[in-house]
Amino acid sequence: MIRIYTSEQFIDTFIRSKNKAKSLSDDTLKIAKQVIDQIRLHGESALKEYVQKFDGYLPLNWEVTEEERKQAWSKVDGETITSLQKAADNIKKFHSKQIQQSKIMELTEDIISGQLYRPIESVGIYVPGGTACYPSTVLMNAIPAVLAGVSEVTMTTPVREEDSIAPILSVAADIAGVNKIYKIGGIQAIAALAYGTEQIVPVDKIVGPGNKYVAAAKSIVFGDVGIDMIAGPSEVAIIADETASPKYVAADLIAQAEHDENARTFLFTTSEKLINETKIEIVKQCEKLPRAIIAKKSLSTQSASVLVSNIDQAIDLVNKLAPEHVEIQLDNPLLYLSKVKNAGSIFLGSYTPEAIGDYFGGPNHVLPTSGTARFSSGLSVDDFMKKTTYLYYSERALCDAALHVVNIASEEKLIGHARAVQVRLGND
Amino acid sequence: MIRIYTSEQFIDTFIRSKNKAKSLSDDTLKIAKQVIDQIRLHGESALKEYVQKFDGYLPLNWEVTEEERKQAWSKVDGETITSLQKAADNIKKFHSKQIQQSKIMELTEDIISGQLYRPIESVGIYVPGGTACYPSTVLMNAIPAVLAGVSEVTMTTPVREEDSIAPILSVAADIAGVNKIYKIGGIQAIAALAYGTEQIVPVDKIVGPGNKYVAAAKSIVFGDVGIDMIAGPSEVAIIADETASPKYVAADLIAQAEHDENARTFLFTTSEKLINETKIEIVKQCEKLPRAIIAKKSLSTQSASVLVSNIDQAIDLVNKLAPEHVEIQLDNPLLYLSKVKNAGSIFLGSYTPEAIGDYFGGPNHVLPTSGTARFSSGLSVDDFMKKTTYLYYSERALCDAALHVVNIASEEKLIGHARAVQVRLGND
Repeated sequence: MIRIYTSEQFIDTFIRSKNKAKSLSDDTLKIAKQVIDQIRLHGESALKEYVQKFDGYLPLNWEVTEEERKQAWSKVDGETITSLQKAADNIKKFHSKQIQQSKIMELTEDIISGQLYRPIESVGIYVPGGTACYPSTVLMNAIPAVLAGVSEVTMTTPVREEDSIAPILSVAADIAGVNKIYKIGGIQAIAALAYGTEQIVPVDKIVGPGNKYVAAAKSIVFGDVGIDMIAGPSEVAIIADETASPKYVAADLIAQAEHDENARTFLFTTSEKLINETKIEIVKQCEKLPRAIIAKKSLSTQSASVLVSNIDQAIDLVNKLAPEHVEIQLDNPLLYLSKVKNAGSIFLGSYTPEAIGDYFGGPNHVLPTSGTARFSSGLSVDDFMKKTTYLYYSERALCDAALHVVNIASEEKLIGHARAVQVRLGND
Repeated sequence: MIRIYTSEQFIDTFIRSKNKAKSLSDDTLKIAKQVIDQIRLHGESALKEYVQKFDGYLPLNWEVTEEERKQAWSKVDGETITSLQKAADNIKKFHSKQIQQSKIMELTEDIISGQLYRPIESVGIYVPGGTACYPSTVLMNAIPAVLAGVSEVTMTTPVREEDSIAPILSVAADIAGVNKIYKIGGIQAIAALAYGTEQIVPVDKIVGPGNKYVAAAKSIVFGDVGIDMIAGPSEVAIIADETASPKYVAADLIAQAEHDENARTFLFTTSEKLINETKIEIVKQCEKLPRAIIAKKSLSTQSASVLVSNIDQAIDLVNKLAPEHVEIQLDNPLLYLSKVKNAGSIFLGSYTPEAIGDYFGGPNHVLPTSGTARFSSGLSVDDFMKKTTYLYYSERALCDAALHVVNIASEEKLIGHARAVQVRLGND
């Protein structure tokens, strides 16, 4: 099912020919823009119209009440709640170490400079409903925001017919520390969060996954509010040698492939035997898989095995690919950690399947895809903070700097800049 | 010249009615896309064609030679060089404190997790030529990249008729530590840096200012490479009371206004006297200003004075505006630092004109505009680094986590994810 490529074929097919993560179609953008413009212009009345039209049901109130949030707990299995709480603990523990402090760069009698790290004031988290209704999305997006100190963390997710949202999402929101939940989905949710209405308080930044309409809406409101990345299909690259278990390798490729027909799965190995046995295992394991149709489509069209002459070659290919997830199924996996330069997140050893990272281990599962790990990073506390620099000069410090500022400003022909210094020294 | 607004009028005019920083026109994007597509498809031959067409002159080699870089030093005034070196020292000193370290989040016998901070491998810096030929742009963009440890820092700037680039830019590049300089400008430079040609090595991220075509090109290649922000018009907001000097305030408003007809300048003060005297000073100081026409246009159309009842009100308006630069011309300016929540950079006291920050003080001058300081930050070493998380679980750790991962995966109906854990425990 998973096709074998030479290293050159792999580069040509998956790296050189790589097309830009397919941009949103003009039609999708047009629809999104129309909805956004209407809600921006007409507020509540337009929002109501679109929620009725697209979500098919108008909730009594936008906001989930405290009572509704309380009731949701009784609708979720207790063991699942415990597991979500344990996952949240791990995610908090990991992300809390990301919190940075304000810094003083210079502090003398005459010069003070530094950088303030402060939370963004309000953040909106979009969480899909429907079939892809994932409590892990709530935890991964909300926990770093709460840890950053964002004072208003608002979540929004589509209303369901009975005027409710999925109880599991409400419980996850409570566990993560979300302040407010709206029952709004789709483009209209993004528009309401970006611009506000009579009832909805606008936010400064919007994060979270969604379908192509949500992605289009986020790309349109970007600039007026911040957004996170627009994610492409999920990816895993496994680096393995003959010591790896074909069972484990197959299971991890399948786990990735079951996400989406377009999910991409790669195996780089020095062992032809591993390739062959993994193929057999994939067929076997797919038999019992509920989402086998999706996984098989992905594995037969978006997948590659590459037989490499040594592990360094495998790592080189992975660095060129810059995939979202990398698994290192080798002995002594830590020895290879520093060599993997371009990756969203790295999973080390035979007992760290990527599924651990999706849910439980602590690192974030919102990660760069489509080669963007070359220049960008997974979601972290930093994404919910902003940095402001500051500078104080005394009269003496300005006096000492004056000549240099005037020289550079004059070179750049910005004489008003030079004057702003000179006027303070009585040289105007 | 600078119009007086009430607080309410100010909010309505400059904040509520705020339109999205004017997006790039369809025509501009269309032209940029065409050039990019051709260079991507045909490489060198297309690049040569467009450089000849748009820059008007085809350089002998794309890259500025070592000899040419050496010669540039003799063409720049020695005093200007000294000033640029002093500025570079300050910028390095400030930015070196931004460098972050890789972190270990957890380290036990059974679990290892952490986050690697590593440089982006290659970065391209676009530097305009022509009238806005600014060595400060080179320093502010290149120094953080060099400090981050980017191994290939490439600068590109338009060729001039005599097959050269502006010597001051070459000297600034040497001072900042730029590895390579190309003589290419405009859309074609962005396309070449993003996709490479037979001669040009592609980069992972492109930063630096440019005209609307450069901005459009950057927005198109984004996703295939990283980009920095697309900046709007420059802005300053001055908070001052009756102790402030109208001379200084006027000089700083003018310095901002001389950048661009669309530059925005705001004065928030408790003193009507200051407003009136500043107006008189502006007229006086503009008389001797080479760029008076630009400054006057900006000051008469993009400018506001607001008489506030107290300083807290001024700060509240500034936080709503989230301007690029804030000046606090009050006694004890440090007392107000923490109150200014949304700003790109803050300048404290009467002897810290923003011009010091543009060139010399150390903080970066590439800053968020148009209200985006609510959710984004100025250019820093972080923009040239990426974070990769990692996770190691032992068999025992996996065993302990298994039930929870299976519970959450089952809740999300991703059974392949559950199986990736179960298969390792022999429970498949």
